[in-house]
Amino acid sequence: MADSIGGALRLTLFGESHGAAVGAVLEGIAPGTPIDEEEIAAAMEKRRAKGAISTARKEPDVVKFLSGVYEGHATGTAITMVIENTNTKSGDYKKTGALLRPGHADYTAKVRYGGFADERGGGHFSGRLTAPLVAAGAICASMLRKKGVFIATRLASCAGVPDAGSWDFSREGIAACVQEVAEKAFPVIDYASGMAMEQAILAAAGQGDSVGGILETVVCGLPAGLGDPFFGSVESTLAALMFSVPAVKGIEFGAGFAFARKKGSEANDPWQMENGVMTAKTNHNGGINGGITNGMPLVMRTVVKPTPSIYREQDTVDWATGENAKLIIQGRHDPCIAHRAAAVQNAMTAFALADLAARRFGETWQEASIWNTV
Amino acid sequence: MADSIGGALRLTLFGESHGAAVGAVLEGIAPGTPIDEEEIAAAMEKRRAKGAISTARKEPDVVKFLSGVYEGHATGTAITMVIENTNTKSGDYKKTGALLRPGHADYTAKVRYGGFADERGGGHFSGRLTAPLVAAGAICASMLRKKGVFIATRLASCAGVPDAGSWDFSREGIAACVQEVAEKAFPVIDYASGMAMEQAILAAAGQGDSVGGILETVVCGLPAGLGDPFFGSVESTLAALMFSVPAVKGIEFGAGFAFARKKGSEANDPWQMENGVMTAKTNHNGGINGGITNGMPLVMRTVVKPTPSIYREQDTVDWATGENAKLIIQGRHDPCIAHRAAAVQNAMTAFALADLAARRFGETWQEASIWNTV
Amino acid sequence: MADSIGGALRLTLFGESHGAAVGAVLEGIAPGTPIDEEEIAAAMEKRRAKGAISTARKEPDVVKFLSGVYEGHATGTAITMVIENTNTKSGDYKKTGALLRPGHADYTAKVRYGGFADERGGGHFSGRLTAPLVAAGAICASMLRKKGVFIATRLASCAGVPDAGSWDFSREGIAACVQEVAEKAFPVIDYASGMAMEQAILAAAGQGDSVGGILETVVCGLPAGLGDPFFGSVESTLAALMFSVPAVKGIEFGAGFAFARKKGSEANDPWQMENGVMTAKTNHNGGINGGITNGMPLVMRTVVKPTPSIYREQDTVDWATGENAKLIIQGRHDPCIAHRAAAVQNAMTAFALADLAARRFGETWQEASIWNTV
Amino acid sequence: MADSIGGALRLTLFGESHGAAVGAVLEGIAPGTPIDEEEIAAAMEKRRAKGAISTARKEPDVVKFLSGVYEGHATGTAITMVIENTNTKSGDYKKTGALLRPGHADYTAKVRYGGFADERGGGHFSGRLTAPLVAAGAICASMLRKKGVFIATRLASCAGVPDAGSWDFSREGIAACVQEVAEKAFPVIDYASGMAMEQAILAAAGQGDSVGGILETVVCGLPAGLGDPFFGSVESTLAALMFSVPAVKGIEFGAGFAFARKKGSEANDPWQMENGVMTAKTNHNGGINGGITNGMPLVMRTVVKPTPSIYREQDTVDWATGENAKLIIQGRHDPCIAHRAAAVQNAMTAFALADLAARRFGETWQEASIWNTV
Repeated sequence: MADSIGGALRLTLFGESHGAAVGAVLEGIAPGTPIDEEEIAAAMEKRRAKGAISTARKEPDVVKFLSGVYEGHATGTAITMVIENTNTKSGDYKKTGALLRPGHADYTAKVRYGGFADERGGGHFSGRLTAPLVAAGAICASMLRKKGVFIATRLASCAGVPDAGSWDFSREGIAACVQEVAEKAFPVIDYASGMAMEQAILAAAGQGDSVGGILETVVCGLPAGLGDPFFGSVESTLAALMFSVPAVKGIEFGAGFAFARKKGSEANDPWQMENGVMTAKTNHNGGINGGITNGMPLVMRTVVKPTPSIYREQDTVDWATGENAKLIIQGRHDPCIAHRAAAVQNAMTAFALADLAARRFGETWQEASIWNTV
Repeated sequence: MADSIGGALRLTLFGESHGAAVGAVLEGIAPGTPIDEEEIAAAMEKRRAKGAISTARKEPDVVKFLSGVYEGHATGTAITMVIENTNTKSGDYKKTGALLRPGHADYTAKVRYGGFADERGGGHFSGRLTAPLVAAGAICASMLRKKGVFIATRLASCAGVPDAGSWDFSREGIAACVQEVAEKAFPVIDYASGMAMEQAILAAAGQGDSVGGILETVVCGLPAGLGDPFFGSVESTLAALMFSVPAVKGIEFGAGFAFARKKGSEANDPWQMENGVMTAKTNHNGGINGGITNGMPLVMRTVVKPTPSIYREQDTVDWATGENAKLIIQGRHDPCIAHRAAAVQNAMTAFALADLAARRFGETWQEASIWNTV
Repeated sequence: MADSIGGALRLTLFGESHGAAVGAVLEGIAPGTPIDEEEIAAAMEKRRAKGAISTARKEPDVVKFLSGVYEGHATGTAITMVIENTNTKSGDYKKTGALLRPGHADYTAKVRYGGFADERGGGHFSGRLTAPLVAAGAICASMLRKKGVFIATRLASCAGVPDAGSWDFSREGIAACVQEVAEKAFPVIDYASGMAMEQAILAAAGQGDSVGGILETVVCGLPAGLGDPFFGSVESTLAALMFSVPAVKGIEFGAGFAFARKKGSEANDPWQMENGVMTAKTNHNGGINGGITNGMPLVMRTVVKPTPSIYREQDTVDWATGENAKLIIQGRHDPCIAHRAAAVQNAMTAFALADLAARRFGETWQEASIWNTV
Repeated sequence: MADSIGGALRLTLFGESHGAAVGAVLEGIAPGTPIDEEEIAAAMEKRRAKGAISTARKEPDVVKFLSGVYEGHATGTAITMVIENTNTKSGDYKKTGALLRPGHADYTAKVRYGGFADERGGGHFSGRLTAPLVAAGAICASMLRKKGVFIATRLASCAGVPDAGSWDFSREGIAACVQEVAEKAFPVIDYASGMAMEQAILAAAGQGDSVGGILETVVCGLPAGLGDPFFGSVESTLAALMFSVPAVKGIEFGAGFAFARKKGSEANDPWQMENGVMTAKTNHNGGINGGITNGMPLVMRTVVKPTPSIYREQDTVDWATGENAKLIIQGRHDPCIAHRAAAVQNAMTAFALADLAARRFGETWQEASIWNTV
C-alpha cells in the first residue's frame, strides 16, 4: 500500500502541502510508552526552514495529537498526529501551473493521478510531508534512546564541500560523539566545513541555482541480531524508508560503492574478542552481515539531489497545450534541503530500527533480553 | 515477514543450502499466464556457476513446479517452485564450523537463531537461495516482455575494471541494445572489457582472494505512471528487493551519488515534446520522478562486495571457545559473484516492476491501458 | 496490525470516545473517484442516535476531510476523515471508573493496555468509533452503486420480534427492494414489525434493561468471480470486518446454521440457464461457492448482542481494590444498538466488496470487464 | 493475498488435489521451537478418511519438510511442508467434467480462473488442501500446549443428532476435559451420541445423500489480554481462518445467535474475585470482550454444510454447451466431513491464537509474562 509502511510498527502518511493538514498515523507503539512532546518539538525544529539557506516559507509545525496519547503516554492504539497547514500561498504555484517543472514530480503526478491530484504547492509530493515523518520518528528515537541506541546524521558533503571532521568510532567515544552530532543545529562534525557549506549554498542560491549533498547516518548501541536474511534485511528495511524521502537517489552501507574496488582480503571485517566483548577490527560492512546487525555501529550514507526548484530559465513542456515552453519558477524554495533532510533521515532510521525490533520481539520489544548484550 | 515480500504479487523464499531443497512460492500471477519452462531454464543458466571464475559446486538447478501451473499456464493460485539440493558436500564446511568467517553471516546467524539454524553450506544465507529468486523473476520478466518492457543488467565494473562499452540510449536503439545485453553469457557491453574482468578475477583467485563489482540495470519500455510517492516509490520497491540479494551493499538511481556534486541546473532533466512524444533531454533521474516512472529508461546501479570466502588466513573468533583464532577457509567458493548476480538482479527487477503494476492494476495488470502509452 | 485492515484498499481507524476526535484513513481509492459529501452525510445520519430508543448523547458527526479529497474527487492518496468529539460528558463515566462493567471491555482493556488506555466514555472501544467506519464505507458503497451493486441491511429480528416482511429475491424485483430497504429510517421490511420492535426496545429500556437483534444484509448486482478459495474467501473477508463491529458475536451466510439440519440434496443449489443467464434455483449458499461470489444475491446475517450498559444492579469487581462489588451504571446509553449497527454493517460490507474487487483488478477495478456480466 | 494469511505468523497454502503435491509454508516460528513429527502425524491421523463414513480415497498423508526444520527444531526461517499426492484417480472426475456440480465451486472456479484452473479432483478447492493446514496447526498447537493452552473441537451435532454430553467447564475440570475430547477418534463427548451420528451418516449415505453438522471448539488456559479491539479482534482473526475451511458457512462465539433472544441482564457475565482469581460467573461472551480474551474459556461454534457431492440426480448446466442438464456424480466422496473437519478447526484455532500472541509479543511470545497469569 503506497501510503503505509512497516511490519510490526506501521506508519501511514497523509496530506497535501496546501490542504487542511499533513499528518501520520503510527500503529504498534506499546501502551505506556512515554510521549514526550518536547522531544518531538526538538526534532521538528531541526527539520524546520531556518535562515538564509532555506525557503522563506516558515511554518510553526505544531504537532497535534488526535488519538492514541493520553496523559503523556501512548494508549496502545493508533497515534494520529496532525500538523495544520497555515502559511500557504498558492498564488505563486498557479503561475507556473501547466509548465512541468524539470526534476519535479509534476509530469509523473499528472500521469499517475490523471489530473485529480491537489497540485498546489507540490501537493502530496511536497517536502512538507516529511514533517509528520519526523514527528513519528521522534517517538521511535525516544524509545531507542532509552535502550542505549543513539542515532545521528551528518552532512558528509554538501555542494561539493566535504565535512573535514570524522566520527569517533572508538568503543569509549562513539556514544558521546553520536549524541553530540545529533544536537547540532547544522549537522556537520567540523564547524568550519559547515560554514563553507553554507557559503557554497548561498553562492548557488545567488546564481538562482541549488545544490545537494551526502548524508551519513551512524547508529551506535545496537545489539547484534536485529534483521533477517533476504527480504527482512536491515538494509532492505532502511532503504525502503530512505527512498521514501523525496530527493534521495542513492544509499550505501559501510564501504558501499567503494567495495567495488576492494579485494575480499581488504573488505572482510576480522572478528576479535576483546575483554569478553565480540567486536570487529574494521567495519567495512557498516554493522550488518547477512542482513542482520552485528553489534558494530551501523553506517549508512544517502545522496540528496539538488533541489529541482531553481530560478533559472528551463526548457520544458506546457501540459495544457503539449507545446515546448520556457519555465521560470517563482515562489519560495530551498536552495538546498540536504541539511534539513538529516532530521528526516534520523526519523526514518529510528522508525526502521524500532520496527525491526518489534517484528521480532513484538510491541514490548524494549523488554527483550537482547538489549542487555551490548 | 522476513521470508516474504511484495504487495499485490507476493514472493516467499525458503530452503537451506544443504537441506532437502530450496524454493519459492509466487502468488498473484493471473490465471492463464503462460509459464515457459524454457525461458525459466535460460534465466537459471545465466545464474549458474560456470568455468574457472566460479565455484566448483555446479548444480543442475532443475526447477520443479509443485503447484499453480497446469498445462503450461498459471492456474491463478500459488505457484510453488522447488530446486532440489543434490550436490552437497558438508564436510568442508564442518572443518571450519565454529570459526566465524569474517564478512559472512556466521556470527549474526548464531546470534539471530540461537544456534538452531542449519548452518551447513551457509544454510538459509547461502547464495544458493538466489536460484528460486531467478525462477520467480523469470516468470515476471516474461510477462513484462510481452508488454514491450525489457530488462538487462551489465557489469559496469568488476575487480576495478570498467566496462568500456555504453548503452545505446537512443529511442530507436535502446530496446535492441537492452535485449542484446540480456542475452550475453558474460554481462558486459564491451567484449574486451569482459575479458579483462575475467583475467582480474582469475588473478585475484590465484592469490586466494576475491573481488566485487558494480551492476547496472537498464529497463526500457516502461510506461510513465508506475509507483507512488513516499513508501510505494519505485526506488523503495526496487531497493528493498536488491538489498535482499546477498552481498549487495549499495544502490543508486540515475546519477545517484554523483548528484552530490551537481547543481540543480545540471541535475534537472528538461522536458521536451518530440513528434508528439514526451521525453526528457537528459536522464539524470534514471526514469523516476517523485517515486514514479516517467517513461524514460530506468537506470539503477548496485555494488556487489567481494565474496567473503577467501583462502588467505584470517583473524577471527572461535564461537565454541570464545577465543581469538586463525581461520583458513576450505571448500568450493566463487572468487567473484558479481557476474552471476546479474541474473538475480534482473529477476528481482522484474518481480518489482510486475508487483508495482499489479498493485495499481490488479492481477490483470497486463490489460491496463497504460501499456499503450509508451 | 490491530488498527488497520484490508488488502488492496486499506482502512485505518483511530480515536477515543472523549479524545480530540475519531477518524479513519482510507487508502487505495482511485484518483478521480467522486466523493459525494451528501451521500456520506446520509449514511452517517442512519447511524446516528435518534429518538427515544437511542442514547441521549447526540453528536452532529460532521465528517471533515484532512487529506486525499480535492474539488470533490479523490486525489489517489490517503483519504483522512475526522469527526471531532464535541459532546463529551466524562463525569458520568468517572463515577463507575474502577468498577468493571460486565459484558464490556473494561477488564480486558485494563489487562491489554496496562492501565494506559484513555478509558473515558469507553475510549477506543466506544461504539463512537463506528462513525468513521460508516464514512469510509459510504465512499465504497457509492463506487459499487455506480456498477449496479446495491447493499441493504435489515433487522431480521430485534428483542425477539421478527421482521414479518421478506425480501423480493426475484431477478426483476431485487434491485428495487434492496434500495428501498436501504432508504428506510428504521431498517425493517414490514413496518408493523418495526413498530413492535421499537415497543419491545422501549419496554426493555423501561426495565433498565437492553436487547439485541439479528441483522440481515443482502447485496445484489454482484458479478460472479469475486473472492478466492481459502484465506481470501468472501466469507473470511466479510467476517473479519463484521467481527470488528462491537457487539457482533456471530455471522452466517446463506442457510448458515440451518445447514446442520439439511441433507446435501436439500442444501445444494441446482444451476439453471434461463434465457442465457446462469442462475441457481435456490440460494442456500448465500451467493458464495468455494469462497467466490456466484452471481446470486449475497445473503449474510449477524447477531448483535444486547447493549451491556444496563441500569440494573450488577455484580462485579472493583479493579482498584480487587474486591467484589455492586455496580449501577450511570450515563447515557442505548437500550439497543442493533438498528444503528445496520448502517455500520452496510459500510463494512461495502468496504469488503470494494477491497475484494481491488485485490483482483487493482485501484481501477471499476473498469474491469467483470461488471458487464451481471 | 489469497493464498496467505496471518499477521506475525504467516501461512501460505499451495497445491491442487491431483497435482504433484499439496503443502504449506509457515513463517514466524521462533528458532529452537521443537518440531515433533509424531504430534503432527497424530493430528494428521485425526483428519484422515477412515471407515465406512468417509471417502474411499485414503492417502498416507506423510508430511515432508523441505525447509526450516533441522535436527528436530525450527531453524527460524520458513518451514515448508509438503504432502505428495499419490492416490489420484482423475478418471472419475473427468466423466462429469463440464457438468457444474451444485454446491461445489465448479462454476465459480471457471469464472474466477477463466478455465485455467487444474480442476482434477476439485483442484485447489479440494478438501485435500486442509491436510497441510492441519500440519501447520499442529506445530502451533504444540507451542500453545507447553504454555498450558489446550484446544479441542467436538461435533455438537451431526445429521441433526446432538451430542448429549457437555463440557466440564469447572476451573478444576476443564483442562482434563478438553484434553480428553482432543484425544477422541470420533469427536463427541457422549459416546452413544457419536454412535447415533455415525448411524445417521450411514443412513444418509445409503440414500446417496450427505449431512452436515455443528463443530464446537473450546480453548482453555488462555490468559486475558490477547487480541485487539476492532480489526485485530480474536473473533475477526478466528473467523477469517474458519471461513477458509471449505464448507464452513457460519460461526458464533459464546451465546452467539442466541444473544438475539436475551436481555442485557441475561447476557452480561458478572465478574467475581474468587480466592484472588478473577473469573466471570457465566461465559455468554465465550471468553472474549471487546475483541480481547478475558481469561475464561474460549467457546466457538461453526456450521459445516452437508458435503455437496451426492449420488442423486441433480439439475445443472453443462458448461461446454450452456444447456440445462442432469448430473449424476461418480467417484469417491465423504457423506459427511464435519467429523474430519474437527481436526482442521483445531489447527486453524491454534494458528490463530499463536498468531495473536506473536503479533503482540513477537516470535518469542512464549517467553512473555502474560502466560504466568492464568
